[in-house]
Amino acid sequence: MELKCVVAIVRPEVMELLERKLGAIHIHGVTVTRVRGFGVHPNYFADDWTTEHIKIEIFAQTQNVDALVKTIMDVAQVGSGGDGVVAVIPVEKFFRVRNQAEAIP
Amino acid sequence: MELKCVVAIVRPEVMELLERKLGAIHIHGVTVTRVRGFGVHPNYFADDWTTEHIKIEIFAQTQNVDALVKTIMDVAQVGSGGDGVVAVIPVEKFFRVRNQAEAIP
Amino acid sequence: MELKCVVAIVRPEVMELLERKLGAIHIHGVTVTRVRGFGVHPNYFADDWTTEHIKIEIFAQTQNVDALVKTIMDVAQVGSGGDGVVAVIPVEKFFRVRNQAEAIP
Repeated sequence: MELKCVVAIVRPEVMELLERKLGAIHIHGVTVTRVRGFGVHPNYFADDWTTEHIKIEIFAQTQNVDALVKTIMDVAQVGSGGDGVVAVIPVEKFFRVRNQAEAIP
Repeated sequence: MELKCVVAIVRPEVMELLERKLGAIHIHGVTVTRVRGFGVHPNYFADDWTTEHIKIEIFAQTQNVDALVKTIMDVAQVGSGGDGVVAVIPVEKFFRVRNQAEAIP
Repeated sequence: MELKCVVAIVRPEVMELLERKLGAIHIHGVTVTRVRGFGVHPNYFADDWTTEHIKIEIFAQTQNVDALVKTIMDVAQVGSGGDGVVAVIPVEKFFRVRNQAEAIP
């Protein structure tokens, strides 16, 4: 069982719609962090050039990653600067605390 | 020297006890982020289905990872939904800023 | 194209100077999260032993990682406890949401 962590930095308003779509592709776990950042185009209207975004982290089986990345990008794409990025990071082991055993995300 | 990053998403109240246990297994560095999320069971009592959790990140030598994961799960396990998850992610290099050199976590 | 994620846990005041230096080494994207943590020396003056730090995450091409790590450490180094750490994590895929395509960070 190969696992990945899909990390997305997107606009805050993406989360609500994304949550509803995740269930449809069998993703049942998501972590959201409030972050600040900038991409290719810094936000020159803010003192520190940054914009408020959210970071979404989802652990997923490799076979589900392509659909997950597509779903995130479909929901997050406005087509302009600040849309954000998605990255796929390898995960070596994954445990569920409830039963203290290795698990499938 | 092989290194990992152990990432845990657990209830906020876990941190205090965990900190005291980490010293006993020679872990001397931890990063804590306030996050929101849901796992297998969304929190239907919240508007956005999420619950407040914390994300713990600990860089560790591979040989210490099993003990670290066990310690986290022992402290974090209530035995019900929301207990959280633990993942192990590969780390290629690790530097300590103080002396600007590669280091052992 | 090999990609990495450079993760740094540093003092909050590092960010302002670092942002200006990143442009000079062709880094055009950074994510900043407020975190709490402790390293080799816990902060015994705080109830929970932790200190406020920031976590910086930057996706970069492998060929730019050494210069990026050096730049971060140069800006972040005071030479005392609490200076923080930098880690390099592998990234398998990277997408820009704006055009829904794989991209170079």
